[in-house]
Amino acid sequence: MAQEENVVYIGGKPVMNYVLAVITQFNEGGDRVVLKARGRAISRAVDVAEIVRNRFLPNIEVKDIRIGTEELQSEDGRTVNTSTIEIVLGK
Amino acid sequence: MAQEENVVYIGGKPVMNYVLAVITQFNEGGDRVVLKARGRAISRAVDVAEIVRNRFLPNIEVKDIRIGTEELQSEDGRTVNTSTIEIVLGK
Repeated sequence: MAQEENVVYIGGKPVMNYVLAVITQFNEGGDRVVLKARGRAISRAVDVAEIVRNRFLPNIEVKDIRIGTEELQSEDGRTVNTSTIEIVLGK
Repeated sequence: MAQEENVVYIGGKPVMNYVLAVITQFNEGGDRVVLKARGRAISRAVDVAEIVRNRFLPNIEVKDIRIGTEELQSEDGRTVNTSTIEIVLGK
């Protein structure tokens, strides 16, 4: 993609950590920020997108949402499927 | 919407219960099935969509994904914001 895309990976930290990371990236001039999450963190990624838009940056829109599946290797060697989400936020 | 839409609400039951519900609705002739979930169940809704498509109904596509916020009243009377997702599956 030619357009600049910053990625914020959503994990197990408090939601506001990620909200702040997104706001910072937009304030530094980014046009788009992509939230990426797997498994249980998917719900948190949606929280981050909603809090950014509803409380802090009302001019930011959800441009795209993609879901998918990733194969992860578990510690005992088995392959485990995990769902993923990518939420593209932009001006 | 003029088109027939069946809704499957995703809650705390095992994922395969919801997968079966979605497959049943498509087998009964539905064109679209909308998965709706709130809060922590959002991750499970993505799991359901992915399992339906990857394992059971490869001709089904994700037509749209919408996220939002709902205000819920907690038991002590406070208002709590909860994230929501709607995943539209269709042929």
